[in-house]
Amino acid sequence: MTNGSRFELFNLDLDPAFDLIKRSGAKVVGVQVPEGLKRMASDLARDIQEETCAEVIFSGDPCYGACDVDLDLCRAADLVIHVGHSEMLEGDPLHDKVVYVEARMRADVREAVEGAAELLKTSRVGVVTTVQHIHKLPEVLELLGGRGIEGIVRPGGRTRYPGQVLGCNYEAARNADVDEYLFVGTGQFHPLGVALATGKRVVAADPVTGNVSVIDAAPMLRRRYGAIARAGDAERIAVIVSKKPGQRRMELARRMMSLGEEQGKRMILVYLDRMEPDALVNLGVDAAVSTACPRIALDDQAKYPVPVLTPPEFEVLLGRRKGEYLFDEIEQMPI
Amino acid sequence: MTNGSRFELFNLDLDPAFDLIKRSGAKVVGVQVPEGLKRMASDLARDIQEETCAEVIFSGDPCYGACDVDLDLCRAADLVIHVGHSEMLEGDPLHDKVVYVEARMRADVREAVEGAAELLKTSRVGVVTTVQHIHKLPEVLELLGGRGIEGIVRPGGRTRYPGQVLGCNYEAARNADVDEYLFVGTGQFHPLGVALATGKRVVAADPVTGNVSVIDAAPMLRRRYGAIARAGDAERIAVIVSKKPGQRRMELARRMMSLGEEQGKRMILVYLDRMEPDALVNLGVDAAVSTACPRIALDDQAKYPVPVLTPPEFEVLLGRRKGEYLFDEIEQMPI
Repeated sequence: MTNGSRFELFNLDLDPAFDLIKRSGAKVVGVQVPEGLKRMASDLARDIQEETCAEVIFSGDPCYGACDVDLDLCRAADLVIHVGHSEMLEGDPLHDKVVYVEARMRADVREAVEGAAELLKTSRVGVVTTVQHIHKLPEVLELLGGRGIEGIVRPGGRTRYPGQVLGCNYEAARNADVDEYLFVGTGQFHPLGVALATGKRVVAADPVTGNVSVIDAAPMLRRRYGAIARAGDAERIAVIVSKKPGQRRMELARRMMSLGEEQGKRMILVYLDRMEPDALVNLGVDAAVSTACPRIALDDQAKYPVPVLTPPEFEVLLGRRKGEYLFDEIEQMPI
Repeated sequence: MTNGSRFELFNLDLDPAFDLIKRSGAKVVGVQVPEGLKRMASDLARDIQEETCAEVIFSGDPCYGACDVDLDLCRAADLVIHVGHSEMLEGDPLHDKVVYVEARMRADVREAVEGAAELLKTSRVGVVTTVQHIHKLPEVLELLGGRGIEGIVRPGGRTRYPGQVLGCNYEAARNADVDEYLFVGTGQFHPLGVALATGKRVVAADPVTGNVSVIDAAPMLRRRYGAIARAGDAERIAVIVSKKPGQRRMELARRMMSLGEEQGKRMILVYLDRMEPDALVNLGVDAAVSTACPRIALDDQAKYPVPVLTPPEFEVLLGRRKGEYLFDEIEQMPI
């Protein structure tokens, strides 16, 4: 029961969390799960109540990562179970209340990795993945080795496991001295991030669909330089700071405010939990610089009525940065 | 300049806030404004910076009332200017940081009140309004008096001014011993609330449009009993608790949880900042009980995929309440 056998795609090991609830005597247990797992809320509440007799309070707001621990829930509960992401917020005073329960995907990597190996051009590749597949890395290295390819796995900075990348952090990739990467995981955003953050060739292997592809960063780069160009004559510019504990880069935002003000822009510092199109419409700004999750500018631009730039893109706009495109990584805990 | 002459519809007296910023030596000033006033953000930031040299941080999240003070902003700033609503959160430890700047509508009440007087049936009516028009009450009473009608203005509980009502509180109406009410203000939700909370006849006078109308609560009541009926065979039910400081009724929510569990329902306690249709979809519940702003159930039901009931409506569903419809009022500070 506690092994989450009802969750087809994922393994959740809840036993350590149950033990901790019992040992700590927590009476109110908060639970935070990403959107894709919210449907298990009701079953999970029953499991926790049956095992521990604690009251369960669910976080109903969307959860986008370990950067997005629900601090209000931490205040309301004695202990919070944060499902699906690996530990990140060591610096936060509320962090002691949070137990991370990683979600491990059952999906078999063999087919995708073997397909991807065909597309690799070098015999020494950096191997990166997200936390959902991190337990598959030994198997990935073995599969590559069987084809004479050496897989290089390096630790990152903000991540818990060697080889682990986040949408906002590719240190595990940058720390590998290679000319090519294999990304194992779902979606296009992370492998695109590896390509943009390293400037190297990236082959993506999706264990869920079995699809393999060579990442082409050119369309994204065209869109980003397009957004920078469209922001060219913006007069009123909002600098967005996220309230989410792992995205709260107030000092960076203040630097962006100064850079804009020095060039005569009307700058507004805006602090928010969730970036929404309406927020920008109502503020009446011509452009925004987002110091929150880089995905807001890169992946969600189409949602917004005005150009939304990352901090390095804003520096390009102001002529303060030249050369290669710099991916906006969050390297240290911003708290 | 500080008198907000650029804001066509409203008078804002910012001078006391400016004085307080200077006297307190606040270096970082947070500013929170309702959506309708967000466009003034940029001008307001400039005014504050020029007057006080403080750094200004705007709240970018929607703001629905004095119940919705941005506590994250309070933590990030030395002092917060909350625009548009009257003081409410005396109980909150962060409350000392908040300066309320009420927005007073310039709209002339004469035409609407004279029109409404024609529709009144009694010579002794309760007079209620929202904070935006509270300064017009003496004129309203005078206009009524000129027609031989005595206007009764009574203090409420959760509100600052006699005669003031909120979307969640009609004590100022209930405290008047009358058979009929005159509501002065915009929109249908507040006068409908007066009708539902008192069971009496309500005439509404809108100073902005000049429109007058007799409130008919019957269609809303039909919709509400329809929602209760649709929730009849719900098995999984979420009880929603708002994170907003003036809506956070955790004890009431716990009572609703118990009532549902006693009748064999699968209950889930959900804590959230913003109620969204997706939240209910993802949780996979058949119905919800909202202990947050009553407007969520009453005004926004059409947005949600499942019936959303107020706590008294849930009691009707469970057979724990009979008789007249009870409007869900928030009477005490829930903090």
